[in-house]
Amino acid sequence: MNKNTDRLCINALRALSAEAITTANSGHPGICLGAAPVAYTVFARFLKFDPIFPDWENRDRFVLSAGHGSALLYSLLHLFGYDVTAQDLAEFRKLGSKTPGHPERGVTSGVDASTGPLGQGIANAVGLALAESHLAAVFNKEGYPIVDHYTYALCGDGCLEEGISYEACSFAGAHKLGKLILLYDKNDISIEGDTAVTFDENVAGRFAAQGWHVEQVDDANDIDAIGSAVLRAKADDRPSIIICKSVIGFGSPLAGSAKIHGSPLDAQQLAQTKTALGISGAPFETPQTVKTACAKVVEKNIAEHKRWNELLKKYAQEFPELAETYRKYFANDFDCQCGDTAFDKPEATRISGGTVINEIAKSIPNLLSGSADLSPSTKSDIINGGWFSPADRTGRNIHFGIREHAMGAICNGIALHGGLRIACSTFFTFSDYMKGAMRMSAIMRLPVIYILTHDSIGVGEDGPTHQPIEQLAGLRAMPDLNVFRPCDRSETAAAFAFALNSADPTAIVLSRQDLRQYNKGEQAEYGAYIIDDCDSKPDVLLIATGSEVGLMSDAKTVLRGCGINARVISMPCPELFDRQSDGYRQLVMPNDVTTRITAEAASTLGWHRYTGNCGETLGMTTFGLSGDANELFRKFGFTPENVAEIAERCVIRRSRSE
Amino acid sequence: MNKNTDRLCINALRALSAEAITTANSGHPGICLGAAPVAYTVFARFLKFDPIFPDWENRDRFVLSAGHGSALLYSLLHLFGYDVTAQDLAEFRKLGSKTPGHPERGVTSGVDASTGPLGQGIANAVGLALAESHLAAVFNKEGYPIVDHYTYALCGDGCLEEGISYEACSFAGAHKLGKLILLYDKNDISIEGDTAVTFDENVAGRFAAQGWHVEQVDDANDIDAIGSAVLRAKADDRPSIIICKSVIGFGSPLAGSAKIHGSPLDAQQLAQTKTALGISGAPFETPQTVKTACAKVVEKNIAEHKRWNELLKKYAQEFPELAETYRKYFANDFDCQCGDTAFDKPEATRISGGTVINEIAKSIPNLLSGSADLSPSTKSDIINGGWFSPADRTGRNIHFGIREHAMGAICNGIALHGGLRIACSTFFTFSDYMKGAMRMSAIMRLPVIYILTHDSIGVGEDGPTHQPIEQLAGLRAMPDLNVFRPCDRSETAAAFAFALNSADPTAIVLSRQDLRQYNKGEQAEYGAYIIDDCDSKPDVLLIATGSEVGLMSDAKTVLRGCGINARVISMPCPELFDRQSDGYRQLVMPNDVTTRITAEAASTLGWHRYTGNCGETLGMTTFGLSGDANELFRKFGFTPENVAEIAERCVIRRSRSE
Repeated sequence: MNKNTDRLCINALRALSAEAITTANSGHPGICLGAAPVAYTVFARFLKFDPIFPDWENRDRFVLSAGHGSALLYSLLHLFGYDVTAQDLAEFRKLGSKTPGHPERGVTSGVDASTGPLGQGIANAVGLALAESHLAAVFNKEGYPIVDHYTYALCGDGCLEEGISYEACSFAGAHKLGKLILLYDKNDISIEGDTAVTFDENVAGRFAAQGWHVEQVDDANDIDAIGSAVLRAKADDRPSIIICKSVIGFGSPLAGSAKIHGSPLDAQQLAQTKTALGISGAPFETPQTVKTACAKVVEKNIAEHKRWNELLKKYAQEFPELAETYRKYFANDFDCQCGDTAFDKPEATRISGGTVINEIAKSIPNLLSGSADLSPSTKSDIINGGWFSPADRTGRNIHFGIREHAMGAICNGIALHGGLRIACSTFFTFSDYMKGAMRMSAIMRLPVIYILTHDSIGVGEDGPTHQPIEQLAGLRAMPDLNVFRPCDRSETAAAFAFALNSADPTAIVLSRQDLRQYNKGEQAEYGAYIIDDCDSKPDVLLIATGSEVGLMSDAKTVLRGCGINARVISMPCPELFDRQSDGYRQLVMPNDVTTRITAEAASTLGWHRYTGNCGETLGMTTFGLSGDANELFRKFGFTPENVAEIAERCVIRRSRSE
Repeated sequence: MNKNTDRLCINALRALSAEAITTANSGHPGICLGAAPVAYTVFARFLKFDPIFPDWENRDRFVLSAGHGSALLYSLLHLFGYDVTAQDLAEFRKLGSKTPGHPERGVTSGVDASTGPLGQGIANAVGLALAESHLAAVFNKEGYPIVDHYTYALCGDGCLEEGISYEACSFAGAHKLGKLILLYDKNDISIEGDTAVTFDENVAGRFAAQGWHVEQVDDANDIDAIGSAVLRAKADDRPSIIICKSVIGFGSPLAGSAKIHGSPLDAQQLAQTKTALGISGAPFETPQTVKTACAKVVEKNIAEHKRWNELLKKYAQEFPELAETYRKYFANDFDCQCGDTAFDKPEATRISGGTVINEIAKSIPNLLSGSADLSPSTKSDIINGGWFSPADRTGRNIHFGIREHAMGAICNGIALHGGLRIACSTFFTFSDYMKGAMRMSAIMRLPVIYILTHDSIGVGEDGPTHQPIEQLAGLRAMPDLNVFRPCDRSETAAAFAFALNSADPTAIVLSRQDLRQYNKGEQAEYGAYIIDDCDSKPDVLLIATGSEVGLMSDAKTVLRGCGINARVISMPCPELFDRQSDGYRQLVMPNDVTTRITAEAASTLGWHRYTGNCGETLGMTTFGLSGDANELFRKFGFTPENVAEIAERCVIRRSRSE
C-alpha cells in the first residue's frame, strides 16, 4: 500500500467519524481526528482479524480504552469489512442503533470490550494478554501455535491519569505480558485544557519504571514510525507502550483546542475539515481507492484465519485429547461439581468457599482464581493450581497485588477473551475500590466471580473501615449482578454453582466468623427458602441472610417460649427470589403472614420490600466499631432476645390494629 | 539525644506495639517493628506538635497511611505526651477503647486522619499539604509565617500498589507540593509473600517520573540517614519520598516473613522479641531514659507552639483584618448566602448548581472547588476564583485531573486540615471510582461536598456506562452521608446550604437536562415535602426526586382527568425525611393514604419503604441505553401516562381489597 493511499484511508476514517458525530449532533471528534492514523496503522498493517468471524478466538484483540473515540472504531469496522454499514454510521448514538455512544460488546460486531469509563480498557487488555499467555502455555505445541495473538489497546491522556491504569500496567510489567501493546494517543489536551495544568508526568519514565518497553513517535501522522515501533514492540518480551504525539481534532478548524474534545463540528466546520482532509463526496461515502485498499487487508486476514483453521485441524489429529480440551475450554463445556457439601461443624463461609472452589476447580480446569493480596484470608487459592508468573504461565492462581480496581477489570479482560473462567477475591469492604470494574462486568454480562469475604461487623477488631455496611445495598441495586450472601457451606456451594452456570457476574459475600450448618443449600437457587420452619402456621416470618440466619433460628426458639410461631427464611439472593413465580414466593412468604422481621448486619436499605407495612428491619444505621465481633453483634442489637422483642412488638401492634 | 537513647526509644516503641498486639491477640506487628525507627525519627527530630493542644492548626501533620500500623502510632502518641496511657495501649482493639484497630480521628487525640483502606492516607496527606500551601499564600506576610508546616505520611508497599497513590502523587508532583514528605516503609513483604511476585516497580523511577524528589535509605534502622534525607527533602521544592528499606517484624523471631504481617506474636515470641530489643520490665512499662528523652522533645515542641502563639498575636496587631479573616476561616464562621433562587425558566440542576455555588462562594471565601477534569460540564468552577497552581497558591479552583479516587481523598485531606471548605465534582457514574474516598469522608465525618452531575438516563447519548442506576441506592445506604437529588434551582440551593451547614459530607446529585421550576426549595431541608398538592384529600401520593418530580406533576394532571386526586411529594433527601418527627411525616404522607407511587430513574432499591404494601415503584431494572434522553425516558416508562396507569391500577386494587 503506498503512502498516498494510506493517507487517503486515514482521512476517510477521519471524515466518516466527524460526519457521524455531526449527524448525531453528539460525540467526541477530537480523538477520532487525532488518533486515526494510530488506529489505522494497527488495523491495516498488524491486526489479525476476520470480519466474517469476528469472534475467531485467535484474532488479535483491539480495545479502545478511550471509549469516547467510538466513532473512529465504528469507522474502522466499517472500512475493514465488519457488519457496520454507512447507514449504521449515520445512526450513530441513536436509540437501538449498532453504533451507540460508547463501544458496546454484543451490540456491534468487532467490538472486543465495552469501554467508556476511562482506564478500564487498559486493564481489560492486560486481562486479554494474560488469558492469551495462559492458554498458549496450556495448549501450544512445537509447530502448533494455536493460541498466538497480540492484544492492542488505544488510550488517551485520561486513561493514563486514572489509578486503574497504573495498577494494571504495574501488574503487566511485573508479569512480563510481552504481547500487550498499548498505543497512547498523547494529545496533551483534556476537558479542562492543557493536561499540564495537573498532569505533567514523564510517561516514558513511568512506564520504564513499571518494567515496560517504551517507544516514542513524535508525530502520530507518521505511520511508518508507528509501524516500526510496533515491530520493535512485538520483538520485546516486555509489554510495550508506543507514545504517539498527536494533535487533537487534527484537520478541523478547532485542532489543538479542548473545544474539539467533546462537541460535534457544526456543518460549516465539518465541510472545512473534509476539504482540508481532501475528502469529497456524499456523507458516509467512501472513496473507491480506500475501499479497494481495505478490501486487500481484509482478504489477507481471511486467508490467515483459514491457515489457522488448517493448523487447528492438524493439531486435532496430532493431539486429539488436547484439542478436545481446547474445545471444552472455549465452549465452557465442563460440569460444575461441588462434591458433597454436607457438614456439621460451625465454619466461616470464607472457609467453606475455599473448600468449594477447590472441589469445583477439579471439575473445571479452565477456572483461574486470584486475589488482591488477601488469599490467605479469603481462601480463594486453587491449591496445587500453581501461580501464574513469567516463569510459569500455566499457573491457575494469580497474584493481582493490592490493586482491587485493576483486578476486577483484568478479570473482565480474562472473561472477554474466552476459553477461561475467573474468580477473584478481596475483603468485601474493598469492593468499593473495584466498583467501577464490577459495573463493567455487569454491563458486559461477563461471568466473573467476585469472592468478597469479611462481610460485616463480624470482622471485629479491624474496625469500621474494614466492616461493610452499605456495600450489599449498592451491589444489589446493580442490574445484571447477582449477589449471594450464604449462611452455611451448602449455600456457599450453591452460590458457586450458580455463579459457574451463570452468564452474568456473581458476587459471593462470605463471613470471617464461624456460622452454623443447615445443609439445605440446594434450595438457595431460588434466592430464598424456608430454612427453619415452625410446626403450625407462622405468626411471624424471620428473614435473614448469611450470619443472621442462625440468629433468626435462635430468635425463633425464644419466640416459641412466648407462644409465637416463627418461620425462618434464608434469603441468600433477594434479586433471585424476586424473579421466582408468584406461587413460590407465596409459599415461602404467604401474603397473610404480614408480620415480618428482617435481619442483616448491614444497611436496611431495600429490606422494606419484604417487611411491608407491618414489619421491621434490623440492620446497621451507623458504621461499625473496633472490638470483639460477638460484643459488636450484641451492641448493635443482633441478639435473639432483641429480635424476639421486635417480633413480639410487631405481633402485638398487628393484633391491636385488627 | 545520643544514639543509644534513640535506639532505646525505638525499641521501647517496638516493645509497646508488640505488647499491645499480643495483649489484644489481634493486630499487625510486622510494620510496627519494622518502621518504628522511621516514625520515631520524624516525631523525635522533626515533627512540630503540641500534645496538650493536639489540634493546634500550625502543627505538622502526620498521617499513618499504612493504618494497620496503628499500634506503632499509639505507642508514639503515648511516649510523646498525648492522651494515650499505658492502660489505653493495654486496651488496644477493645470495644470502646481509645486505641481502635485502625487509627480513628476523633477517637484518639493526635490522630490526624482515620486510615486503614490502603492508599487513602497518602492522598489525605496531599490534601493537607495543598491546604497548607493555599492558606499560607492567603495569610502569610513577610516575617509572619503563621501558616507554615510540613505534612508527613508513612506508607508501606500496599499503599503504593493502590491506584489512588499514583493518582495522588501525580497530582502532588504536578502541583509541586514541596512541603509533603512521604516516608515509604519498604519491607518488600505483603500478605501473599514477597511483593516481587506481582510488584517489582522501580519506585524511585516512578516517583521521579511524577516530579518528586527521591531519597533512598538502605537501612531503616539508620536514623541519621533518615534524618539527613528529611533535611534534604525539606530543602527541595518538590514533594519528597524517602524510601526506607526495612525488615518486616524486625527483632522478632518471624522477622522478614509474611507471617508477621497480620498475626500477633505469641507470649513466647513476644518475650524473645523484647529480649532481642533489650526491653525488660513489666508490660507497657517505659524505661525512664526513654521517658526523659521524649519529655525533652515534647518540651521543645510546646515552646515552639508558644512562640507561634506570640507570632499570631503580633500578626493580629499588625494585620487585624487579615487576622480576623484567619479566625473566621478556622472557625468556619461565615454565613452561607445563596442569594435569591427564585427562577422561572427550565434549567438543568447542574446549571443551577453552578449559579448557586458561585453565589455562595461570595459569602464563604474559604470555599474551594475542584473537578476531575469535568468542570465545563459539572459547572463547579468558582468564576474568577483563580486556579490553584505552583504559580498561584491562592487559586480557589483545583484541576484534580481525571483522578476521581484521589480527588475524594485529597478533599478529605483539605477538610482534615481545617481552615477550608471544599467541593468537588464529577459525573455521578464516576462516583464509583471514588466510592472508597467518599466512605472515608463519612467515617471521618468531614463536610466534603460532592457535586455529582449527569445523574440518570437523562445523560442520553453517552449510553449505559455513563448513566447511573445503582449509585443512588449505594450512597443512600452509607451512614453519615446525606444524598440530595434536587428537582429545581431552589432545591439545589437548599442542598448546597444544607451541605455548607453540615458537619457531615453531602452528595448533591444533579441533572444534565433542563427541569421545571417549583421555587419551593426552602422546604427541602425536611428531606421531603408536598410540592404540588391536590385540592381535596389525596387518593394517591406521587413521590419522586429530581427530574421525576416534574413527571409526577404531569401524572397528577392526567389522574385528575380520571377523577383521582394525587399529591406530589418531592423527596430530595429520603434519609433526612426519615429523621423528621412523626407529625411532620404524617402531614406529608398520611398513614391512611396507602396508595403510593414512587418514581426515580434509578434502581428502585429502597423505595418500598415509602410505598408499603399498596404501592408501586417506578424505576430502572436494567442498565440504560445510548440514545436521545427523551426517547429513553419514554422507553423506560417515565411518562405521565404510565405513572397515571400504575396509580389507577393501585387505586382499583386497593378499592377491591377494601
